[in-house]
Amino acid sequence: MKKIGKQTYVMANDVFIRDAYTIAGTKEGEGPLGDNIDYIMSDSTWGEKTWEKCEAKMQQYSVENLISKNNLKKSDIDLMLAGDLLNQIVSSSFAARSLEIPFIGLYGACSTMALSMGVGALLIDGGFAENVVCVTSSHFCCAERQYRIPLESGGQRHMCAQWTVTGSGAVWLSKNNDNKDLPKIKNVTFGKIIDLGVTDSNNMGAAMAPAAADTIRQNIIDTNVNIDYDLIVSGDLGTVGKSIANKLLQDEGINIEKKYDDCGTIIYDIDKQDAHAGASGCGCSAVVFGSFLYKKLLKKEINTLLFTATGALHSPTVSLQGESVPGIAHSIGISN
Amino acid sequence: MKKIGKQTYVMANDVFIRDAYTIAGTKEGEGPLGDNIDYIMSDSTWGEKTWEKCEAKMQQYSVENLISKNNLKKSDIDLMLAGDLLNQIVSSSFAARSLEIPFIGLYGACSTMALSMGVGALLIDGGFAENVVCVTSSHFCCAERQYRIPLESGGQRHMCAQWTVTGSGAVWLSKNNDNKDLPKIKNVTFGKIIDLGVTDSNNMGAAMAPAAADTIRQNIIDTNVNIDYDLIVSGDLGTVGKSIANKLLQDEGINIEKKYDDCGTIIYDIDKQDAHAGASGCGCSAVVFGSFLYKKLLKKEINTLLFTATGALHSPTVSLQGESVPGIAHSIGISN
Repeated sequence: MKKIGKQTYVMANDVFIRDAYTIAGTKEGEGPLGDNIDYIMSDSTWGEKTWEKCEAKMQQYSVENLISKNNLKKSDIDLMLAGDLLNQIVSSSFAARSLEIPFIGLYGACSTMALSMGVGALLIDGGFAENVVCVTSSHFCCAERQYRIPLESGGQRHMCAQWTVTGSGAVWLSKNNDNKDLPKIKNVTFGKIIDLGVTDSNNMGAAMAPAAADTIRQNIIDTNVNIDYDLIVSGDLGTVGKSIANKLLQDEGINIEKKYDDCGTIIYDIDKQDAHAGASGCGCSAVVFGSFLYKKLLKKEINTLLFTATGALHSPTVSLQGESVPGIAHSIGISN
Repeated sequence: MKKIGKQTYVMANDVFIRDAYTIAGTKEGEGPLGDNIDYIMSDSTWGEKTWEKCEAKMQQYSVENLISKNNLKKSDIDLMLAGDLLNQIVSSSFAARSLEIPFIGLYGACSTMALSMGVGALLIDGGFAENVVCVTSSHFCCAERQYRIPLESGGQRHMCAQWTVTGSGAVWLSKNNDNKDLPKIKNVTFGKIIDLGVTDSNNMGAAMAPAAADTIRQNIIDTNVNIDYDLIVSGDLGTVGKSIANKLLQDEGINIEKKYDDCGTIIYDIDKQDAHAGASGCGCSAVVFGSFLYKKLLKKEINTLLFTATGALHSPTVSLQGESVPGIAHSIGISN
């Protein structure tokens, strides 16, 4: 068995992260990672009639460009593993419709980038696929109107609210590579749903932090690496959730503070860009991974990374029925 | 590689379908499969305040009973693979919250039962998991108000509309079994998104039929079995979609009519129960598989089965934007 400990799967074979492609909106382009993002859209619709169509186009474009820049054909990709925040994951399914690649639809809210890379890695290691593409997206305008309030109403945002990233990131995983020096997925921890009762849809960071802490802790225990990662990055907890996750881990005797960061605090200059508690959305961890973390690995600025995307499975329908927001997190252990 | 042809994965090891558990509503209980369903709820809320909470309880109950009737503990299950029709797959995530099993959230609309069994089978065959639970659900009342119109309005149903099954089915897949005679998953075909432009949300059968035909055809070509299955069953095309799928396959020279059936035409007595074009919903193929098809395999009434659940990735939001309904289907090849 390739399972170690309670929840972690180790790769018996090389699973290379061959390349990544990222696309994002103007706000993300103006942020600290702007120069690293492959393509910055000119506006929030990108020639489409609606934000939803724009988001689907972002996913399609991410995958198409990832494929073409590597001189691949669509038929070289065995499977596309994708999901997004929109109901019925329409961005992913519409992108998959255009791409004509066999499609595994996933839903892990903002944890989806790690979920897709985790399932993809296992399918490659298990000998089923040679090449898979993992892709997610989010769009600020679609997310606000689906989950909260229409933008047109101009409501004031809470200080613990996060700004949903407009962007998409696609990653190519492969069993083959002539250059053995590329980053490889070494282990995957699939998380449990953790719900400590947060009911405030403007405080997703607090809802997700316990799940992030739980999965990071489980990965560290299962792999017995004793915090051997150069960098541990959670998905999109933002400033509020990040401090809670840190505190929860410290309470359990795990101090990762010096090597811990969060995608939700990286992509915007939070103060200058009025992002309140930071960034969120499926696109947040996807774009930060593809444009920043992956490049840090390539440049050997870090050699090991625990990438833990986090999701708040928030449903407006059941929130109105008094339910809280379940959180989940999945961890991907990567090393050069 | 375990991939054969273009889209099909073959198991190198035994992946046993160890057991199944099904639960459904009163209408399903009064139908032809009523006596085979493990538990029939007394009403549409089952003691909960809302239909959504009832649906989550159904999933939870399916898995708990599947586990307890086999004298397992929750900790014996490596992964729960689940999805449903509700936005943010809340039935699955709330069930997973109670069950505390590591969770892979999937979205394939009504194709989710096959999608979960497909991914689960690969994870077992690949040596990652010993035991997984695959589960889905749907609820007529939740689905109608989310996708179409509030039930309270009493709108007349179209004759090509299908009735969303209120029910949940859970399946236990395992690498271990002393009795080698149990049904085993032999191959999995993950489908592509196929969309021939159907925009009528009351005719999901027509939207899904091309995807069903495409995946069934691909499985037959890839495995080169030349229609060697005793029975080929699609997910929930209903009477309208079933006849279209048959016609599309015949047009390609594949005649499966004599051994072909559809879950959407099996679970209700369509004429007596006023089900119009038949049944649909994630719960449809899950309940029909667990209560009927699996038992036919156990009794050796059939020895090989191609189970092809079908999904219409219909989104009310993008339908209002003029978009059509993409379809998908995933096939699971099973033999004794």
